[in-house]
Amino acid sequence: MSLLVAVTWETQPWVERFARYLPGRAIVVLGEEFDRSKIRYVATWGPKPGSLDRLPNLEAIFSLGAGVDHLMGYPGLPDVPVVRVAQDDLTHRMSEYMVMHCLMYLRDHARFAAAQRAKRWEEDRSPPIAADVRVGIMGFGVLGQDAARKLKMMGFDVAGWSRTPKSVDGFTVYSGEGGLSEFLARTDILISLVPLTPDTRGILNRTLFEKLARDGRLGGPILINAGRGGLQVERDILACLDDGTLKAATLDVFEAEPLPEDSPLWEHPRVTITPHNAAVSEPEATARYIADQIHRHEAGELFQNIVDRARGY
Amino acid sequence: MSLLVAVTWETQPWVERFARYLPGRAIVVLGEEFDRSKIRYVATWGPKPGSLDRLPNLEAIFSLGAGVDHLMGYPGLPDVPVVRVAQDDLTHRMSEYMVMHCLMYLRDHARFAAAQRAKRWEEDRSPPIAADVRVGIMGFGVLGQDAARKLKMMGFDVAGWSRTPKSVDGFTVYSGEGGLSEFLARTDILISLVPLTPDTRGILNRTLFEKLARDGRLGGPILINAGRGGLQVERDILACLDDGTLKAATLDVFEAEPLPEDSPLWEHPRVTITPHNAAVSEPEATARYIADQIHRHEAGELFQNIVDRARGY
Repeated sequence: MSLLVAVTWETQPWVERFARYLPGRAIVVLGEEFDRSKIRYVATWGPKPGSLDRLPNLEAIFSLGAGVDHLMGYPGLPDVPVVRVAQDDLTHRMSEYMVMHCLMYLRDHARFAAAQRAKRWEEDRSPPIAADVRVGIMGFGVLGQDAARKLKMMGFDVAGWSRTPKSVDGFTVYSGEGGLSEFLARTDILISLVPLTPDTRGILNRTLFEKLARDGRLGGPILINAGRGGLQVERDILACLDDGTLKAATLDVFEAEPLPEDSPLWEHPRVTITPHNAAVSEPEATARYIADQIHRHEAGELFQNIVDRARGY
Repeated sequence: MSLLVAVTWETQPWVERFARYLPGRAIVVLGEEFDRSKIRYVATWGPKPGSLDRLPNLEAIFSLGAGVDHLMGYPGLPDVPVVRVAQDDLTHRMSEYMVMHCLMYLRDHARFAAAQRAKRWEEDRSPPIAADVRVGIMGFGVLGQDAARKLKMMGFDVAGWSRTPKSVDGFTVYSGEGGLSEFLARTDILISLVPLTPDTRGILNRTLFEKLARDGRLGGPILINAGRGGLQVERDILACLDDGTLKAATLDVFEAEPLPEDSPLWEHPRVTITPHNAAVSEPEATARYIADQIHRHEAGELFQNIVDRARGY
């Protein structure tokens, strides 16, 4: 009846949270002595190789964040349901990030911030309106659709792209390889929210950037990636910024995190960097969500948000 | 049958626009020779004293922007309807401004921008969520209500304050002098959209700032003024920022515009300055709106958005 918490940092706060939401259960951590046959559940983020092995009575693995790419690469991942955390809170935070950064580009915030530093009163005669700006959301799941609705309500012209065909009220959703070029050709601001899988690794590269719209009101295409750093090729982003293929980029995730101090991204004048905080999971809500899933399961219901291993998300 | 365009800058583009939307009418400007008895309409912004006098057949005055304070102080303003421009476009732009700046405060954008400049990967462990932040919109007319709906949809806890009692679905609207203190006491981010009248001149002062909530999640109250500069006492804003009565301020309007180069606001680390561009009127839409109103009037209908001279807006 035990829950094993397998994280590589901050073990104790998680143990305390789970103890509160799952009273009466044994909550154990790696490195302690415990009976491996008693472990029924694992809550984990980035488990080290070997740490999830030899758990004969395991019933489910819970990811402590929204993505599961940190688990999919685990060698010999136990053959039990892998459950993603899906919290409204996290979805809302991600939408905040997208709405804020799209508005900052629409309203040319960087230009007016520079004008303030120079104590210059800058005229702003005929700025574009939101309806003039085409936002394209790559990855049109729960996160992508919530962001789409909010961006649309702010007036942006929003469309989505999804790996598999999808019908979402109020939006054109392009799909598959075939729909990708058409989607990119109508996109001024590209938002990446695709899951990281072997298929999507490095997808944000020069070949893709070159297909973005070049006739928009913002003076060139813009990339916003708050999905996973593994999606992007940073060398290509820098080169494309420098030769005008991209106008600007807002990046929350990186090939290596924390972003190394010697990365040229830090001081590129048209790169906005945030420290993987677009959608910080609220630990209390995460623990509560996992406890709820355990209660559902033990009441004979199905887990929610089980990962499809074939797709990898 | 003439329209007099009385602006102090950029006359010719306005004449061309009106000529397009009002074909066959004489469009005249100050300084030219014209028959004053033929002027039926005036379109104006900040008219100089005397420029609207001796127009015996005048039927209406149109303001070329949303506010009319520039007209209300005109000595001997002709006793004809004064019509405000009310464009969706302008409303949407104002809401963009409010949503963007509230999100930038919620997500502590200034801190992460500083971290980027220092090439520092800043941890962001338990940021507030939008529902933790109470936005108070002072002035709950068309602009205030549109901003309120959009801020609410982003998750903020929004209330309004109006001079006269008002009932708006989905929002608590405080009113009058009596409701003001209660409204301020529940407000973390104060948005000012009140019209500038003799009653509201200088209303954004120390006495008011001291009534704002001090128990919020943002570390102190924040002011966003994109209404009129005459509402604010800049000396008080600076002093309140320095003694902690205010945490930060975002100002789009100023006592004097352009903001003088020697204003200490420019380089205050917790002041964000924009050059009165929160809601730039789109000149084409403004000209079309005024032409529409003239057509309505001549078809025997009432003008829309007539200013109440007793209230001053």
